[in-house]
Amino acid sequence: MEVAVADGSRSDSAAVGAALLHDRYRAPLDLPASGSDVIETLLSHRSVRAYLPDAVPPGTIELLIAAAQSAPTSSNLQPWSVVAVEDPARKARLAALAGDQRQILQAPLFLLWIVDHHRLARNGARQDVPSDGLHFLESFLLGAVDTALAAQNAVVALESLGLGGCYIGGIRNRPVEVAAELGLPPRTFALFGLTVGYPDPGAPASVKPRLPQEAVLFRERYGADDDAPAVAAYDRRLRTFQCEQGMPERDWSEQAAQRVRGADALAGRHLLRTALNRLGFHLA
Amino acid sequence: MEVAVADGSRSDSAAVGAALLHDRYRAPLDLPASGSDVIETLLSHRSVRAYLPDAVPPGTIELLIAAAQSAPTSSNLQPWSVVAVEDPARKARLAALAGDQRQILQAPLFLLWIVDHHRLARNGARQDVPSDGLHFLESFLLGAVDTALAAQNAVVALESLGLGGCYIGGIRNRPVEVAAELGLPPRTFALFGLTVGYPDPGAPASVKPRLPQEAVLFRERYGADDDAPAVAAYDRRLRTFQCEQGMPERDWSEQAAQRVRGADALAGRHLLRTALNRLGFHLA
Repeated sequence: MEVAVADGSRSDSAAVGAALLHDRYRAPLDLPASGSDVIETLLSHRSVRAYLPDAVPPGTIELLIAAAQSAPTSSNLQPWSVVAVEDPARKARLAALAGDQRQILQAPLFLLWIVDHHRLARNGARQDVPSDGLHFLESFLLGAVDTALAAQNAVVALESLGLGGCYIGGIRNRPVEVAAELGLPPRTFALFGLTVGYPDPGAPASVKPRLPQEAVLFRERYGADDDAPAVAAYDRRLRTFQCEQGMPERDWSEQAAQRVRGADALAGRHLLRTALNRLGFHLA
Repeated sequence: MEVAVADGSRSDSAAVGAALLHDRYRAPLDLPASGSDVIETLLSHRSVRAYLPDAVPPGTIELLIAAAQSAPTSSNLQPWSVVAVEDPARKARLAALAGDQRQILQAPLFLLWIVDHHRLARNGARQDVPSDGLHFLESFLLGAVDTALAAQNAVVALESLGLGGCYIGGIRNRPVEVAAELGLPPRTFALFGLTVGYPDPGAPASVKPRLPQEAVLFRERYGADDDAPAVAAYDRRLRTFQCEQGMPERDWSEQAAQRVRGADALAGRHLLRTALNRLGFHLA
């Protein structure tokens, strides 16, 4: 199998796959041939935070939504919606609510991924059937999972078109204000945002290394062994990456520990339960 | 751009894309050229519930995990793990816990996608930093979202290899028993399963139509208009699909209403909050 590479020549995809796997792990991962051009696209993912001002081409949003709707959804419930924001003033207000992230201003398109139980509740009312099942934590979780599956399909699709994107979890910092800005009805919740645009070639993003597979993949039962050596190896590999990128060198083990140390590190999101209750989710 | 089609000939991908879009919506969706072979793979998704007995090739699991780890993850926390189950006896026990779904027995591989705060808590303990941030609903939600993003990358990857899969939400019917079966430590939770194998050509799956885009995609603000016409159109289109498939004809609006009518329709999952508490998630 051959794939096109950046300079327009063609090269063996097994070799390209091996290079991508090396970038992802910074360690040997001896696998049979890399499989498919689709997998090359997946392995090539990088989060893009610097965009050209060019708008996305006409029809792109609809194509991304078609990809998103093609993702699996539990019992075919389809419990999500998208609000596509292109108005610069609205993007600026949303950016302010999401921790002043510059890429929201810069990206020409900002997609808000909404857990949507409003459509299901409205449908139930038309059918004269109660929708009490929506009151449970399970139903909120199902909505969040299906929304995420759909959004990831959109990310894969947009990257295959030469666009870049970055999820914005900061949109959960101020859920009630975000809902007001987007005109969300009760029982809907903006789970995350997604910036979309053409990557700025002047600020290229790189493939970020991840934890070694032995830390995340287990056979038959969860591995109870000490994962300290795997994490220590990852700390070293991530520092090499940070050094190459001119980023401050900082161990993952320290970053991750600080990120989950307490409510003070959650940027307001420790209040999420209360906000969800106000937005009409009971979470029983 | 050309793509290979099933009979080995080659055809124009814009036409293939249009056919796939028609299958997905059963209605015209006039879009510019379909974009990419990757998007063709996404639009072609179908849930596979009948498998050949053949094992997946060596290295496939690792390749799927590499695709999964290439998905975005909030703050690079990587809060998930996978338990890959191939032992028929364990698959049978898990199938019994998940509502006796036959495809779990039939698929040669069953991947369990685990929200994993155990690794983060253990890391915090090594760093002598509290991990109190994990006690909040936000952190559980972040773990579930990142697990879903990763799993969907694996689904896209496996479909590109000619394999098929089906998410198993039924694994949430009995979370505590599933955790015991998999040897899960505290602060981990099997969010869903994923059956994987070669589709049985004797029982082919089809592309399932989804709601029209006007029901799920809004511009700038959530559309408050009545969605009854869009749902009614979808009911008709889904009945056409069901008729073609020899399935019982039943309106989506009725199926969806019954699915969320109350606790009795949740197969035990109305108790999820209590189960998560027992598994070490505080959900404050």
